[in-house]
Amino acid sequence: MNRSMITYVLGTVFKLTGAFLLVPVLCSIIYREHEGVPYLITGIISILIGVMFTINKPRDSSFFLREGCITTALSWILLSIVGAIPFVLTGEIPNLLDAVFETVSGFTTTGASIVDNVEALSHTALLWRSFTHWIGGMGVLVFLLAIIPLTGGGTINLMRAESPGPTVGKLVPKITYTARILYGIYLSLTVAMLLILIILRMPLFDAICTAFGTAGTGGFGIRADSIGSYSPAIQWVITIFMILFGVNFNAYYLILLREFKRAFSMGEVRAYFLIILAAIILITINITGYYPTISEAILASSFQVGSIITTTGFCTADFGQWPPLSQGILVMLMFIGACAGSTGGGMKVSRVIFQAKSMHRQVFTYLHPRAVNPIKIDNQVMDEVTHKGLHSYFAAYLLIFSLSILPLLAEGCDLVTGFTAVAATFNNIGPGLAAVGPTENFAALGGISKCVLIFDMLAGRLEIFPLIVLFSPYLWVKRQ
Amino acid sequence: MNRSMITYVLGTVFKLTGAFLLVPVLCSIIYREHEGVPYLITGIISILIGVMFTINKPRDSSFFLREGCITTALSWILLSIVGAIPFVLTGEIPNLLDAVFETVSGFTTTGASIVDNVEALSHTALLWRSFTHWIGGMGVLVFLLAIIPLTGGGTINLMRAESPGPTVGKLVPKITYTARILYGIYLSLTVAMLLILIILRMPLFDAICTAFGTAGTGGFGIRADSIGSYSPAIQWVITIFMILFGVNFNAYYLILLREFKRAFSMGEVRAYFLIILAAIILITINITGYYPTISEAILASSFQVGSIITTTGFCTADFGQWPPLSQGILVMLMFIGACAGSTGGGMKVSRVIFQAKSMHRQVFTYLHPRAVNPIKIDNQVMDEVTHKGLHSYFAAYLLIFSLSILPLLAEGCDLVTGFTAVAATFNNIGPGLAAVGPTENFAALGGISKCVLIFDMLAGRLEIFPLIVLFSPYLWVKRQ
Repeated sequence: MNRSMITYVLGTVFKLTGAFLLVPVLCSIIYREHEGVPYLITGIISILIGVMFTINKPRDSSFFLREGCITTALSWILLSIVGAIPFVLTGEIPNLLDAVFETVSGFTTTGASIVDNVEALSHTALLWRSFTHWIGGMGVLVFLLAIIPLTGGGTINLMRAESPGPTVGKLVPKITYTARILYGIYLSLTVAMLLILIILRMPLFDAICTAFGTAGTGGFGIRADSIGSYSPAIQWVITIFMILFGVNFNAYYLILLREFKRAFSMGEVRAYFLIILAAIILITINITGYYPTISEAILASSFQVGSIITTTGFCTADFGQWPPLSQGILVMLMFIGACAGSTGGGMKVSRVIFQAKSMHRQVFTYLHPRAVNPIKIDNQVMDEVTHKGLHSYFAAYLLIFSLSILPLLAEGCDLVTGFTAVAATFNNIGPGLAAVGPTENFAALGGISKCVLIFDMLAGRLEIFPLIVLFSPYLWVKRQ
Repeated sequence: MNRSMITYVLGTVFKLTGAFLLVPVLCSIIYREHEGVPYLITGIISILIGVMFTINKPRDSSFFLREGCITTALSWILLSIVGAIPFVLTGEIPNLLDAVFETVSGFTTTGASIVDNVEALSHTALLWRSFTHWIGGMGVLVFLLAIIPLTGGGTINLMRAESPGPTVGKLVPKITYTARILYGIYLSLTVAMLLILIILRMPLFDAICTAFGTAGTGGFGIRADSIGSYSPAIQWVITIFMILFGVNFNAYYLILLREFKRAFSMGEVRAYFLIILAAIILITINITGYYPTISEAILASSFQVGSIITTTGFCTADFGQWPPLSQGILVMLMFIGACAGSTGGGMKVSRVIFQAKSMHRQVFTYLHPRAVNPIKIDNQVMDEVTHKGLHSYFAAYLLIFSLSILPLLAEGCDLVTGFTAVAATFNNIGPGLAAVGPTENFAALGGISKCVLIFDMLAGRLEIFPLIVLFSPYLWVKRQ
């Protein structure tokens, strides 16, 4: 294992974290809040540590899957711990576990909060929370670009424009190039959203935080009722941008390359929009009696559907009060999640499509046992490695999901709270139902429950295996 | 497709159903109940139809997977409809849909009931309900023996003593031989249980019905409180036999062949007992405050664990009142289910082991990408077809499970009721939680919900695909 290279990358992450922490410092200067001081101190120390770690550039810069996973997992953990320190130092989230929960929730773009009253937080803290979402979203894009292709499966349909896929040899230049384009798309969409929100007279601070939270599909709100008190126009804009950030970025890439036909024929993106449309229609019909006008029902339904399927987690309505069918549909959307290759979480639409195709293939095999019938995604035959990788993903998903619920139940959660708390964190959404519903928060959960959910947020964000690998005893066994 | 052969087999099923219906007739004579008459009439008509269908033995007796699936699915449906008629004719379950629900629940060995007050039913009806479980259990054994090996995957570890597996050519003599042994084991265990129950002074009628329900891992009770009012000794005996009927019958087969070492080294059976032990210990600790003595807590915990993991569904306690952790563990056991190759339902322990191994393999692959690391079950490498079959099973399981919940929610079930009603029927258990908990029944559900759950009971019992194949448009497409 190339330890010096891992140290070097982590040092860079330290430096970056330090630099990121200067953004809330700027905010504290504008609002003349003394809370900026701990951010400044933490930022400077983080940068100094980073500089120490990166003085010597390692000669051997070879970087394989094993190193990639470890570095990614450690980076996310490191970001979260360093990012939590200012919350503790300012006393705004005095408990370290709570502060780490909040920061992990931020960087993993989950948006599950332990803050009882967000309106009591300083502007500095609010901006930092929302900014962690935006950074997390960027991190996900790098991760999807640099690490996932090395795993040879588990995520399909990702950066297909780059096919036949980057090999280790030509990885770095290609990644740098593609990353620049991806960041360009990410930044442009964020700025576009910000401008529209400002035009619609959303206060500048609110607009910045909301744009950060939407771009990263995070969901930390800065008001007690999340997005509920903004105008319908603003809510519609947020709805549309949430859905846009849940689209496979490859589609935007293809549009930039002017390959419109390929972009619009992506099976995953089509299915994503179809699912959204079906869910909005069903829920609107189901909740129509709960709202004075049909247009309000459509807005409430669209906002919540967009927020949950993209795993953003903003709310404009307490869907815990909606009829069971609407709640059930939203819980299903929690699992489906956004497109692969977006900043959204969940299982991803492409994986759900694969599941459906796998079932379909088996029915066919029963009737025509001798026929060759491989699974195709967008006309490409799926290879064995991807197939197995996907199956392992589902196996791991189910096992971790089920086992995560038990500690929560042991600490006194009821079944719905336990189930949806894990669903909301493992899929990086934010709010669940019952005691962790949209009008509640995660503060009341026990310590062990919070630790489990921190693990789930990280595991969900890192597509499970890179995090598990870090805890694997095999890691410490010599390579055969 | 060999239609004449399918007709011939279905004719035999008609004849058998007719013969089975004479058993409750016998019971009605003993108890001098007039309810026996409809059973007699239905039985005779069924036999006559069967004779008509089987007059000409088809010349071409070739029977492939496609025919096997269709015949199996149609047999179960046919059994259930014919078996439901007497309930309607006697007026004990006047609604046809309810009567079919009850009979499907019986033959699929689920044990979910729509009868509000079982103690008001005639002895004839009670015996028929329990007898359907016993017939269903036998049916499962034939199905596992004759159909599943043809599917080339999806179920592992089944009838391993027969490996390298029966081929189509030598299928019939081998199946006849193995079936005889399996029925011998099934019958012997049932008789042993019956004798012990009688020795423990359980009334003969109760003992017969309970033995039928336990052997088929069914769970229809004949008292309002299921098994709760019998003595602790009787409850212990039922606990032990429930667990024994959940063991892979291959283990008993190996014991009969005096291959004790192989029988006791079966990974699935070991894991099955380990899971049971762990669940009993955890639940006992969790519910100890709810019972006056520790031994009562151990009995209540053991009985419920044995009943749920084997998917029998008898109850001695309202576990809906237990703390959330115990409820959560029981819900997990609902999904795990019994061993493959037993009369129990659920996903099966061997499939759960496969999932865990698949996850484990993937972690290893991340660290050693070039290492060959196939999944082994009991030292046998799993082939590609089985691997894909298993994955498709899980894909189908999850899709059907999620989609089944929505109609129930639409008809007004709360989330816990909807989720556990599907879990309890799809896994062929019986009771769920909340409105379908152990002290409740399925009568209050809506008509569409009942239809969905009937489908789920059949799909669960038939390992999903043979039933789906019946509804597949491909069935009506010419073989290529």
